Amino acid sequence: MASPLKIGIAGLGTVGASVVRLIERQRDALATRCGRPIEVVAVSARSRSKKRDLGRMSLRWVADPITLATDPEIDVFVELIGGEGDPAKAAISAALAAKKSVVTANKALLARHGVALAAMAEKNQVALNFEAAVGGAIPIVKTLREGLTGNSLARIYGILNGTCNYILTRMEQEKLAFADCLKEAQRLGYAEADPTFDIEGHDTAQKLAILASLAFGTKVDQSAVYVEGISSIASEDLEWADELGYRVKLLGVAVRTEKGIEQRVHPTMVPKDTAIAQVMGVTNAVTVDADAITPITLVGPGAGGMATASSVVSDIGDIARGVRTAPFGRPHTNRRQ
Amino acid sequence: MASPLKIGIAGLGTVGASVVRLIERQRDALATRCGRPIEVVAVSARSRSKKRDLGRMSLRWVADPITLATDPEIDVFVELIGGEGDPAKAAISAALAAKKSVVTANKALLARHGVALAAMAEKNQVALNFEAAVGGAIPIVKTLREGLTGNSLARIYGILNGTCNYILTRMEQEKLAFADCLKEAQRLGYAEADPTFDIEGHDTAQKLAILASLAFGTKVDQSAVYVEGISSIASEDLEWADELGYRVKLLGVAVRTEKGIEQRVHPTMVPKDTAIAQVMGVTNAVTVDADAITPITLVGPGAGGMATASSVVSDIGDIARGVRTAPFGRPHTNRRQ
Repeated sequence: MASPLKIGIAGLGTVGASVVRLIERQRDALATRCGRPIEVVAVSARSRSKKRDLGRMSLRWVADPITLATDPEIDVFVELIGGEGDPAKAAISAALAAKKSVVTANKALLARHGVALAAMAEKNQVALNFEAAVGGAIPIVKTLREGLTGNSLARIYGILNGTCNYILTRMEQEKLAFADCLKEAQRLGYAEADPTFDIEGHDTAQKLAILASLAFGTKVDQSAVYVEGISSIASEDLEWADELGYRVKLLGVAVRTEKGIEQRVHPTMVPKDTAIAQVMGVTNAVTVDADAITPITLVGPGAGGMATASSVVSDIGDIARGVRTAPFGRPHTNRRQ
Repeated sequence: MASPLKIGIAGLGTVGASVVRLIERQRDALATRCGRPIEVVAVSARSRSKKRDLGRMSLRWVADPITLATDPEIDVFVELIGGEGDPAKAAISAALAAKKSVVTANKALLARHGVALAAMAEKNQVALNFEAAVGGAIPIVKTLREGLTGNSLARIYGILNGTCNYILTRMEQEKLAFADCLKEAQRLGYAEADPTFDIEGHDTAQKLAILASLAFGTKVDQSAVYVEGISSIASEDLEWADELGYRVKLLGVAVRTEKGIEQRVHPTMVPKDTAIAQVMGVTNAVTVDADAITPITLVGPGAGGMATASSVVSDIGDIARGVRTAPFGRPHTNRRQ
């Protein structure tokens, strides 16, 4: 069997620790499936003393993520620090410059610096994989990068934020007020203490900017997205929609128009008999509409340590098998003809 | 840019002609996305004189599929003849033996001879891709082969036959008898003059055998599938299920049990609020349940010339980009640990 693929992981929060555990748990299966063993050899995290259940693995600790990113022993740098700036950005840049493939779940960073990072990855002929950045365990990045190759995409839209969908689901099913559902979401850990980023649609906008780039070859640019959140939705709005045969969902929508690619996030009335209308609670879903096919919808867990780790490990597996796809695969020639 | 990937296509029915048109229409986009041009250089079909709209392409005609399969000019042999025996089987075997990668939509052939053909592909280090064989345009083969790499799968089930789902949908929504809905499906071209293969579940069983192999590493074997179709379902059965909060769907189910992998096809009561229950008409859907994630469901067109061609072109694109995954990727070590 070929030599092991050696992984360095920066960030050992819920997702990082889940990645370590998943790679340990599936050690034999991963080796067979990918044709070579996958080994986590080094990690870095803010606190070394924090209690984490990382099983039997002996992991070399590296003082800071940038040192880890260029560590001579590692082949792949996995960035799970988060945040749109440094140290995540500096660490990924350092890894790419050192010709190491990168796997990240960092949507904020990609939505702001995706173009520059993708160019660095291409220049250095290494992979920049980010399945976990959008839609958790849903394989939407792979589907857009590698599937549907023969299609011109017309539209992509989805429920990309579990917090908002949880709140809207509770409001609709139990006729509760927005504020009460938000409090419940906070109590259950589905919403942050400061929920603005989720409920005002910014999280959805970052993910949409990434999807639009994959689908249409636009440059990833969060500021190109029109954003309206759900904080002004009242229980009565949902009842009124219901009477007309609709549900209200916070959708991210990217669509090809005469004037170019339109990107927007806002509460949307969707017919109750569509696949997207059936998506309840914290679940995510993405629908892709293209010229050669009727729509495809992918539904699944959009967040959570293990679900996100599942996509991170899938990205690592592709690198182990030697697959390298352009980070934002679609060219600008991708148009209806 | 790298040299073109040269394709030979055997079978120019609805799907074959759609593949030719799609590759022609997306010529520039495919070249950019895959890093090299994709060219159909030769074809074979039963009738050369049949009228087909194949655009401006000048295609070299080859007398028979086996000669085409070993044609020195082609890199990839695309088999769209159909049927579980020769000439499809002989042609694919000849192509693999000549170290040419193969793309096929032939579920019947794979369900019977998939193990032997996969072994030939592995021995000769070429690809054997078949995204179009299950679920039309839904990227379920790619998701099982390459996504979810870090998961142990627990269960996979789906609506894999559009004819049956169309009939059950009409029966439920309009309280019609099975025979009337079958006639309507035949009139619309959704069902064959002899509908046995679809309505008795054999089509679903072939697709399930392929999915089970991808999910659990079982040997593809249609005869290992318990099969019961929908011909004895009465309108009253659906009303009774409805009262209890269920819909009846013909599901293919492969599940890990204490005694091994169980594979079965039968009408199943599914709770109305599940993603799979919302799938209406000729649409297909597959749900995957694994240890690291809550279920993922993929929904989309399960048949049709262009939808099937979309998956065939996606498979060709992977070969152009140099991706080769083991045909039935999962090892037997894939178990809950």
